[in-house]
Amino acid sequence: MAIGEIKELPKSWAMLGGDGPESYSQNSSYQKGVVDASMEMVDDGIMEKLDLKSLGFESTNDTFRIADFGCSVGPNTFFAVENIMKAVEHKHLAQFNNSAPLSGFQVFFNDVTTNDFNTLFKALRSNEKYCSAGVPGTFFGRLLPRSTLHFAHSSYCLHWLSKVPKEVLDSESPAWNKGSIQCDGLKKEVTKAYSAQFQSDMSTFLEARAQEIVGGGLMVIITGGLPDGVLMSQAGIGMYYDLLGSCLIDMAELGVVSEEKLDSFNLPLYYSSSKEIEEIIKANGNFSIERMDSLSHNIWKTSRETKIKVSVTGGRAVFQGLLEDHFGREVAEKTFENFETKLDENFSIIDGAAHEHIDHFILLKRNVN
Amino acid sequence: MAIGEIKELPKSWAMLGGDGPESYSQNSSYQKGVVDASMEMVDDGIMEKLDLKSLGFESTNDTFRIADFGCSVGPNTFFAVENIMKAVEHKHLAQFNNSAPLSGFQVFFNDVTTNDFNTLFKALRSNEKYCSAGVPGTFFGRLLPRSTLHFAHSSYCLHWLSKVPKEVLDSESPAWNKGSIQCDGLKKEVTKAYSAQFQSDMSTFLEARAQEIVGGGLMVIITGGLPDGVLMSQAGIGMYYDLLGSCLIDMAELGVVSEEKLDSFNLPLYYSSSKEIEEIIKANGNFSIERMDSLSHNIWKTSRETKIKVSVTGGRAVFQGLLEDHFGREVAEKTFENFETKLDENFSIIDGAAHEHIDHFILLKRNVN
Repeated sequence: MAIGEIKELPKSWAMLGGDGPESYSQNSSYQKGVVDASMEMVDDGIMEKLDLKSLGFESTNDTFRIADFGCSVGPNTFFAVENIMKAVEHKHLAQFNNSAPLSGFQVFFNDVTTNDFNTLFKALRSNEKYCSAGVPGTFFGRLLPRSTLHFAHSSYCLHWLSKVPKEVLDSESPAWNKGSIQCDGLKKEVTKAYSAQFQSDMSTFLEARAQEIVGGGLMVIITGGLPDGVLMSQAGIGMYYDLLGSCLIDMAELGVVSEEKLDSFNLPLYYSSSKEIEEIIKANGNFSIERMDSLSHNIWKTSRETKIKVSVTGGRAVFQGLLEDHFGREVAEKTFENFETKLDENFSIIDGAAHEHIDHFILLKRNVN
Repeated sequence: MAIGEIKELPKSWAMLGGDGPESYSQNSSYQKGVVDASMEMVDDGIMEKLDLKSLGFESTNDTFRIADFGCSVGPNTFFAVENIMKAVEHKHLAQFNNSAPLSGFQVFFNDVTTNDFNTLFKALRSNEKYCSAGVPGTFFGRLLPRSTLHFAHSSYCLHWLSKVPKEVLDSESPAWNKGSIQCDGLKKEVTKAYSAQFQSDMSTFLEARAQEIVGGGLMVIITGGLPDGVLMSQAGIGMYYDLLGSCLIDMAELGVVSEEKLDSFNLPLYYSSSKEIEEIIKANGNFSIERMDSLSHNIWKTSRETKIKVSVTGGRAVFQGLLEDHFGREVAEKTFENFETKLDENFSIIDGAAHEHIDHFILLKRNVN
């Protein structure tokens, strides 16, 4: 079953659990926007590219298996998988005309072991339309039996790397990323190290999914990306991370955290170009690219005050684990407090952010061996 | 998918979560003893009654699916399913002589939605031998797709009912169980009400599993029971519950809880006779009984002090949720404190308990339709 060498990701990779006011489940409206924006593309993809007949769905008793890789705690994952099921039902009716609708779905909700599955499961409670299961473990490895999955989905996870490339934290390396907490695109060696890690992780992901997905099965990947020629530091999202980084630099200047502590922290994120992803998928060779697009969505029709609040609580729900793990709880708290002030002072960063980076939408089909 | 009318069980049905000193995972040595005692019977059952050829396991790439219904938070469920996998591998080698060993297992861990799956999944972390998934929801209903399961296991859960029969809490009913918190066997109408609920629940369970298990697939049920002719109030376990009840009666006499509060509480437990279970299985008609036995096990080779401690913490891990839910936290705490004192005064109850009731071991085979 072993693919790659990644057994489990650090605990801090998980989104903030529970369903309280600071939780990911209450603070993931951006990620919900991504899912909403992708729905029509998913519907079209299933109608045009999914051949239920060749997958063997003659009988209405067959079970159609869906997995959401990197589902977090909901509710976004429910919107996504319910949309997929609806589209598959439509396609089944369209393809087998007079027959009864497809009756059986089994949905696997996957995320890291430290994800708050208890909260996810409680939110599932009232739904009786499908059989559901939680699958704990990193998706950079095999999670499901061979050739059993008909549709894989992964939304807004694959720009998370399995680890920060070690060169960028190494003061002896030309790729040392001194003074920045992210791959801002300004230093070639840093970008190269991040890009190589992304390539390795994405390849591992594709290899694992290739084993699980049946020939002819589909996969939708949605991941944060950059338009060709745009550097991370030029995009709103990159400026947002740089601003978060500046809060940490302030803490170092005040002596609250040591310089070494600061230098040993980088975000495990990489926003790829569509060309980069395309090359990785082609090199892997197990999937054909059926559609590659970018999602446009705008969740920012709200007041200045709300925009700032959402940007802070959204960042907290995603990154608090990472910051606490590295700097401790107190520093993490202080950082997000300062972040709110700085976002107010640099409001343009978030006011235009949704337009300045892109989210890749990729529809893949598993080759029939 | 709907079978029966039970959508979800009350939150308080879940064992005590986490892995702290009071948790079920740290206080389920009796239940571990049950699993240990059953292992050889499971091994024999798989070797003698599982026909991998007729189940279609020609290729070593096929996935053998196992589910543990009512798994709680571990670690007992891991011992049980790992033993099953080992036995299936042995059988595969025996049946297909020179072929490679079976490679793929998928294990579904099921319990109520409020079970602490986070703790279960963390304990799973290091295991890479099989694909695992958590399935939240009551097993008194369909949980897995039709005809996909090869082996079902349920250890020490099915003496829990889906609800306390309402007649026993009704002062107008001849089955009113005034003065007792359990089906002690002393009042015919009470026993009849409990027995009817058990029959209904067990039938619902069998019906749901019949849909999920493939023809020729096996199921092991282990459940608390009584030898023929023995009343619950005569068995050690029944005396143990009566003693717990007497602590609550004391609280009512002291005015800490009202009489109405006391009268509206009964344990949702029923210890059946083997004859009763046999009749329910035969009436259901979907399974053949391949073996029916009772488990003998003795975990009591320890000091008096430890026996009392284990009896209290074990009871707490299982029943604290129920008691807290009905009487509140403070009364539950006080009850278990008094329970410890009373167990010391009535030591013979637990000293001989393991010999005075029986645990049914039942091996079933799903009929081929």
